Amino acid sequence: MVFNVLGLVLQFQAVFLLLPCVVSGIYREHEGFSFLIVALACAAAGTLLRRIKTQNKQIYAREGLVIVALAWIVLSFTGAVPFVLSREIPSFTNAFFETVSGFTTTGASILIEVDEMSKCCLFWRSFTHWVGGMGVIVFIVAILPMTGGQNMHLIRAESPGPSVGKLVPKARESARILYIIYLALTVLQILLLLAAGMPLFDAVTIAFGSAGTGGFAVRSSGVASYTPLMQMIIALFVILFGINFNFYFYLRGKHKKDAFKISEVRWYLTIIAASVAIITWNIRGLYQHIGDALHHALFQVASIMTTTGFASADFNLWPVLSKSVLILLMFIGACAGSTGGGLKVSRVLILFKSIRKEIEHIIHPRSVRAVMMDGRSVPQEMADGVKTYLATYAVLFAVSCVLVAGFEMTDFETVFTSVAATINNIGPGIGGVGPMANYAWLSLPSKWVLIFDMLAGRLELYPMLILLTPELWRQK
Amino acid sequence: MVFNVLGLVLQFQAVFLLLPCVVSGIYREHEGFSFLIVALACAAAGTLLRRIKTQNKQIYAREGLVIVALAWIVLSFTGAVPFVLSREIPSFTNAFFETVSGFTTTGASILIEVDEMSKCCLFWRSFTHWVGGMGVIVFIVAILPMTGGQNMHLIRAESPGPSVGKLVPKARESARILYIIYLALTVLQILLLLAAGMPLFDAVTIAFGSAGTGGFAVRSSGVASYTPLMQMIIALFVILFGINFNFYFYLRGKHKKDAFKISEVRWYLTIIAASVAIITWNIRGLYQHIGDALHHALFQVASIMTTTGFASADFNLWPVLSKSVLILLMFIGACAGSTGGGLKVSRVLILFKSIRKEIEHIIHPRSVRAVMMDGRSVPQEMADGVKTYLATYAVLFAVSCVLVAGFEMTDFETVFTSVAATINNIGPGIGGVGPMANYAWLSLPSKWVLIFDMLAGRLELYPMLILLTPELWRQK
Repeated sequence: MVFNVLGLVLQFQAVFLLLPCVVSGIYREHEGFSFLIVALACAAAGTLLRRIKTQNKQIYAREGLVIVALAWIVLSFTGAVPFVLSREIPSFTNAFFETVSGFTTTGASILIEVDEMSKCCLFWRSFTHWVGGMGVIVFIVAILPMTGGQNMHLIRAESPGPSVGKLVPKARESARILYIIYLALTVLQILLLLAAGMPLFDAVTIAFGSAGTGGFAVRSSGVASYTPLMQMIIALFVILFGINFNFYFYLRGKHKKDAFKISEVRWYLTIIAASVAIITWNIRGLYQHIGDALHHALFQVASIMTTTGFASADFNLWPVLSKSVLILLMFIGACAGSTGGGLKVSRVLILFKSIRKEIEHIIHPRSVRAVMMDGRSVPQEMADGVKTYLATYAVLFAVSCVLVAGFEMTDFETVFTSVAATINNIGPGIGGVGPMANYAWLSLPSKWVLIFDMLAGRLELYPMLILLTPELWRQK
Repeated sequence: MVFNVLGLVLQFQAVFLLLPCVVSGIYREHEGFSFLIVALACAAAGTLLRRIKTQNKQIYAREGLVIVALAWIVLSFTGAVPFVLSREIPSFTNAFFETVSGFTTTGASILIEVDEMSKCCLFWRSFTHWVGGMGVIVFIVAILPMTGGQNMHLIRAESPGPSVGKLVPKARESARILYIIYLALTVLQILLLLAAGMPLFDAVTIAFGSAGTGGFAVRSSGVASYTPLMQMIIALFVILFGINFNFYFYLRGKHKKDAFKISEVRWYLTIIAASVAIITWNIRGLYQHIGDALHHALFQVASIMTTTGFASADFNLWPVLSKSVLILLMFIGACAGSTGGGLKVSRVLILFKSIRKEIEHIIHPRSVRAVMMDGRSVPQEMADGVKTYLATYAVLFAVSCVLVAGFEMTDFETVFTSVAATINNIGPGIGGVGPMANYAWLSLPSKWVLIFDMLAGRLELYPMLILLTPELWRQK
């Protein structure tokens, strides 16, 4: 069954890879051939894998996690090959880093001069953000009627957040609704960017990067060279893409009021507003007008909190308070059920409420109150799961920091934020991996640690950690 | 009842304050009068407070936490006054910072030139470490037969670690055994340091600093000016004081073999050995002989992991790998039931085992295995409590970092490690608060944040956090 789903994933990858071929046709670039070759290879391998007969067509939670982890590795591997074949990124580790960074919507780049890349490669880079944002398997489920009735396990394994409920009873219908909302918002952003005067190629790729909350840009200057209006459109849309998609689902239906009652969304917007206020005040001296400070604060807060990672200014040069707020936002991240990364606002909320409950329990030892969220009580199991998630996250974070520190001669800030920026799928960190720097200079072993962190961060830790347990392999 | 216990604490403080008076008599210093005045004031206030009649003599868990938090604040406050009166530390915030740092066994200092201080003040600084290490209330319980039978709640609230079991059924007996072991080890260290040629005053104060895993030194050069032999004696003893005191209790009794089976102690020693190996290898190029590298690595690992904070070398200049390992050790900390701070090895072990259980549960959804520790299963409530503790700790850490960042114009490393070094009761951090620097240059608000962190870290968060909840005050 695992091979069957992987075969299907490869066939879809073949279709995805044809898109940059089309782009290369338009711009008359010879790099398109690399994509064509890999597309054909994927199609062939996919068809072979799907021929394998299976007895058991059920997918349980465990298989769901394993399939998703393997699918993402296969996608990143095949997606990296064209970069190597076309000699745009000659080193395989670099190409793999860039592709993982794309699919996981991290946006951490090893490219120094983006301007020199071919259009089809740039398009592919940004397209991986778009597919990775909502999830490849969610996409497949939305399109194909898959056998077995257990697709929900696959969707759950791929979707971010602690509480992805079914929007509607059928998994396929849920996936389809998610993608329709996603596509509609993306198209809207492209149209607005075009209206603001952005060239078509930039508008499409930047919209892909915003939708997936990825952060790859198509110019060496990032998004700093676009007009303030264009930057504000981008900021608005990354905030929209960082909202729990249940919000849009409620907006569409009869329960419009419920949409604004989702406490995760309220807190998400509150945190953004508070952070913008603090940073604007903190950096007011660096800019001529307070309006400029507000503009850059808003853009950067939106970009970092949604884990997109576009930069309108070099926040590496901002005071330590602004940097610390941004680092804190890296960890909080966007809403669950959005395309953003990080711990997710709802997890942070559940953690805060658990702490509050513990303190109340100490003051009133006999009170047994459940943790409440949106008027319902959070099951003890879920609250416990969130805390275990935090512990797992902290351990992976600490181990990654020590490993990267072991492989690099650099400062602590760079080590700390390079791990924070990859595990939370943001992209740029601070210091040596700041918004105006890149990840090219890191050593090979560090890059592999960060590749693992990007995948673990995007897939919510467990799928990747399970692959490391000997028990799983012994059983197969 | 709260006032009664606080009165008792003040009376004990009066006795403690007489010790530096004796020292000032020996060295013929006039600063002793400041201590005498405060001692008399404490004795008077204590006697008055104890006159208050109470109906309810029971102490429950909640009252235990509140009493301990208030007692520590009162001790630090009265302990700081002599510094101000004697003009040795004219600023009250600085004096309070130094005293809190002493009682919480942090060892973070605002003094620039320690050599210039009077002997009685230096003695008092180091003595606060010794009393704070095992706990003032544990000391009182050990000496006085207190009314009510609920002293265990007080001891529990003051003792570090998730699982301070009763060694023997009676609280008073437990407290007495702990202090006998503590005193015996301290005397042994003083004798060994004297044998190695250290002057008496240095030997006593350094032994106080080691016993409490505090870290105040009595020379401006810290412990760097002592001979390598003396430094190794210090390293050995801080490691011994960082061990769970159950270990010594078992060693004394019939169950000598059980002592070496405590998994916390085994892991504690394993982590020390592994860290020493990594750092020795990492810094081998900085020293002429590999032996010197080993010496400094061992001393620093022992000093940081036990949260003592003595420095034999400026580890601020070491490579980022060594610094990262030290920062990681700051968070892990020493054993529960020792005088050390940090998260405690047993908490980290329970966290690791919880993560392992979660992953096993995903692979085998039907297996329900409890978290095991020392052959017994850890109650679900305790495992859950440890995870909530981690969450609370992470939130306090993040909030403190943002606050300190807001008050200082410095780098991220300094902000991050100043909070890490105070909340974990270590003392020196890295960067601007490194082993050869100090906390004097920080702004007043930052100092108050770090004072709160030191107390919260020493008292295991909840006592201090409860004081901040409006519910507690509304009820009284």
